[in-house]
Amino acid sequence: MFEHRMSEIDDLQAALALLAWDEQTMCPPRGRELRAYHSATLATTVHERIIDEGYGEAIAELSANGAGLDDAKRAMVRLVKHDRDRMVRLPAELVREIRRQASRTNESWERARAANDFAIYRPELERMVELKITEAEALADGGDLYDALLDAYEPGMTVAELDPLLAGLKAELVPFVDDILGRPRPDTSFLAGPYDRARQEHLTLKVLADFGFDFTAGRQDVSTHPFCGGPAISDVRMTTRYYDSLEPGALLSSMHECGHGLYQQGLPAAYVRTAVAHAPSLGLHESQSRFWENVIGRSRPFWSHYLPYAADLFPEHLAGVALDDFLRGVNAVEAGAIRVDADEVTYNLHILVRYELERDILARRVAVADLPEAWNARYEAYLGYTPRDDREGVMQDIHWSWGEIGYFATYTLGNLYAAAIAERMRADVDIDACCAAGEFGPVLDWLRERVHSAGNLLPGDELMRRVTGTELGHEPLMRYLRGKYNDLYEV
Amino acid sequence: MFEHRMSEIDDLQAALALLAWDEQTMCPPRGRELRAYHSATLATTVHERIIDEGYGEAIAELSANGAGLDDAKRAMVRLVKHDRDRMVRLPAELVREIRRQASRTNESWERARAANDFAIYRPELERMVELKITEAEALADGGDLYDALLDAYEPGMTVAELDPLLAGLKAELVPFVDDILGRPRPDTSFLAGPYDRARQEHLTLKVLADFGFDFTAGRQDVSTHPFCGGPAISDVRMTTRYYDSLEPGALLSSMHECGHGLYQQGLPAAYVRTAVAHAPSLGLHESQSRFWENVIGRSRPFWSHYLPYAADLFPEHLAGVALDDFLRGVNAVEAGAIRVDADEVTYNLHILVRYELERDILARRVAVADLPEAWNARYEAYLGYTPRDDREGVMQDIHWSWGEIGYFATYTLGNLYAAAIAERMRADVDIDACCAAGEFGPVLDWLRERVHSAGNLLPGDELMRRVTGTELGHEPLMRYLRGKYNDLYEV
Repeated sequence: MFEHRMSEIDDLQAALALLAWDEQTMCPPRGRELRAYHSATLATTVHERIIDEGYGEAIAELSANGAGLDDAKRAMVRLVKHDRDRMVRLPAELVREIRRQASRTNESWERARAANDFAIYRPELERMVELKITEAEALADGGDLYDALLDAYEPGMTVAELDPLLAGLKAELVPFVDDILGRPRPDTSFLAGPYDRARQEHLTLKVLADFGFDFTAGRQDVSTHPFCGGPAISDVRMTTRYYDSLEPGALLSSMHECGHGLYQQGLPAAYVRTAVAHAPSLGLHESQSRFWENVIGRSRPFWSHYLPYAADLFPEHLAGVALDDFLRGVNAVEAGAIRVDADEVTYNLHILVRYELERDILARRVAVADLPEAWNARYEAYLGYTPRDDREGVMQDIHWSWGEIGYFATYTLGNLYAAAIAERMRADVDIDACCAAGEFGPVLDWLRERVHSAGNLLPGDELMRRVTGTELGHEPLMRYLRGKYNDLYEV
Repeated sequence: MFEHRMSEIDDLQAALALLAWDEQTMCPPRGRELRAYHSATLATTVHERIIDEGYGEAIAELSANGAGLDDAKRAMVRLVKHDRDRMVRLPAELVREIRRQASRTNESWERARAANDFAIYRPELERMVELKITEAEALADGGDLYDALLDAYEPGMTVAELDPLLAGLKAELVPFVDDILGRPRPDTSFLAGPYDRARQEHLTLKVLADFGFDFTAGRQDVSTHPFCGGPAISDVRMTTRYYDSLEPGALLSSMHECGHGLYQQGLPAAYVRTAVAHAPSLGLHESQSRFWENVIGRSRPFWSHYLPYAADLFPEHLAGVALDDFLRGVNAVEAGAIRVDADEVTYNLHILVRYELERDILARRVAVADLPEAWNARYEAYLGYTPRDDREGVMQDIHWSWGEIGYFATYTLGNLYAAAIAERMRADVDIDACCAAGEFGPVLDWLRERVHSAGNLLPGDELMRRVTGTELGHEPLMRYLRGKYNDLYEV
């Protein structure tokens, strides 16, 4: 019963993932309305399957008998129990109401952005926040509300661990950014293009293939917001988007999604259709995308190999651009408004703003009505930038509209994990030499062996401890950033 | 309960349709293996939902109270009851075994074709035939076995009606084909190409748009075997395939699938997520594809409009080809082996072979071991053609491997329906003038009003009677073929 049901749920979730991918890539405009029904019915079916009492009894029985199980089975029981326990604590009506509210909030967010008027968005966001507080209270059982929500994305992580971690990072990062912003702004004009789209696609696909992405077990398409999803480890769906510019543009975005894609393709094939053939957390998933995008894709050795290739493809923009200048351009640090366009230094300050506000909202320290002001005050304090309006301020991200609150911290966790993994990897692998040769086999093999193939056999924190040999801290990320930007910006 | 469950089932079937489309168009090769699990789990879920006893009681209650229902609701109850009654008669183990056998038979069919060795295929096909006979016996309840299986594809149609219908057609068609084949073979060399693929695609998409296909509610992609599917009337997925040649080629195949697609887009939007927003039968669906492919797409007025356009696109192949010669080429009649490449005259003889053999197999008049010989004998008798081997003989189609037996008659029904519909339509619409102008609005409007918008409110035979004002016969098809080919071939 247990394994059959677990696989059944995995299959239905795979179908849901395919529907979601299709909606963003292939679905014709008029198909969206009914697609919402198809996905909702499938989601409801999954929910029913999970909360079914017989399944609960099977889980409880195996859970009580943990010692008699092998490691994989014990991990499956732990994971399935974790998800089910959360679900049964939530009244079905609340789950439905949050889903309905998500589409209302989303719709008002679109209208509010078009009109640049937070007042349109506010009442719907207020309702969503109240629903999420209700959800958090049901899950928290007297504990911290943020912990209760974060647990869906980063199981086991708590604010007790996060707060000092992020405070330590902030204390070093804010003056560091300030230092960099005091330096002359590098030239980025050669990145503007217009870069020919077909040749961008060629370059992008070449780099993904060099990274080791298996195109017989996945594909890349185009969507407005790039993502990586898909129904199976042997069927990974990545997307990208093309701009006139090289950066921001398709290439770095594709490298990011490819990091997710390589992780998915490397999950343990022996455990497909079980809870173990998944990543332990969003943060760990993000560590892989950040690793390939930033540690690899924005590095000097990488561009020492690929800049000549790119210059052959785009001589009108890149012929004569020196490697040093290119690197400063592609790593330009700017105090901007938009998180998704941020460089890797300021990025975590964008996240800190959101994390702190999420904490304040759930603790009712900040009312939704006061969010715009609170948002802007933090951007001024951490980045020295004042958003021009609420569109580039508090209404920038879609996530809260969807009810994804208690979520943003996972991005910074991804960056912290990536830096710690890279630091540890350097003891075994000459990453720079791999990049300079455009041959990433040793890098991918290392990740496959230590991270990907572990799937969800261990809790995320335990896996990270085993991979890096240390406790999680902000130091590896700061060492990485200082090393890189001291060189680039001579700070 | 009734409507909620019916919509739920419709949603899950829509998800299944999307998975099936994706598998043929987008799925990377290594994704197929797990896709089979995803689809099977979803199919099992649908099956469970349908045979659920509570649903059965709700249906029975409404069914008993038929007089109190409006027409649409009564139709829904009738349709859902029909499908459910069939399903509950089949043991779950038999359903699973047929599904498993389908993949075994299919796999052996592929190997047998590669080796050109029927002996590889035979034992698996024998098993499938035994399973389908078991299924038919469970469904037939003492009645005719072919009727029991056909009822899944063409509800209400029986061999008592089909046998005289098809015998009448055969009696006229065999000598007619013989006459035509006695005439000089038309020149088809200008169709061979190679025709540039991008320009074929342009021409194809132009014709589909002219027909009235709504590309905001559907799309066309490429697959090995063209089909039309997709999850919703507002999300229709057609496929085509490109050859070097113009015919056989993408254009006519696309027109065929577009006929299906226009039907789907025209189903009654007021009844989405119910059993009524579907076609009554496969034969009726096929009538629409055949209408647009043959009655429109192989007609003189159509090509009087599109040949000059095509000649501008492909001057190297079509400049100087006279309309009369083009028409003879694109309508060339040949006694060939391959059904899917057949012209519209011989096509129904290919179907008759299969229909008669399906009847013989189910009645155990022909053993699987004797099928190759029986197949070839019929090809000789009806088409004067002897298949060179079993690859172009009995192992030509994949359908029996999948367990689709009691199915082939629907293709000829589609042709009979199409001819009858066209004949009736001519009383209201100047089809030739529409084709000659490349403006198909009046044709599509007529079909929308009489056929498409009726959805599944009426049983197929009743709908056809209402649309055409007559009983189904072979005469309209023979009148259409004689009119067209007497002119082309001067027979």
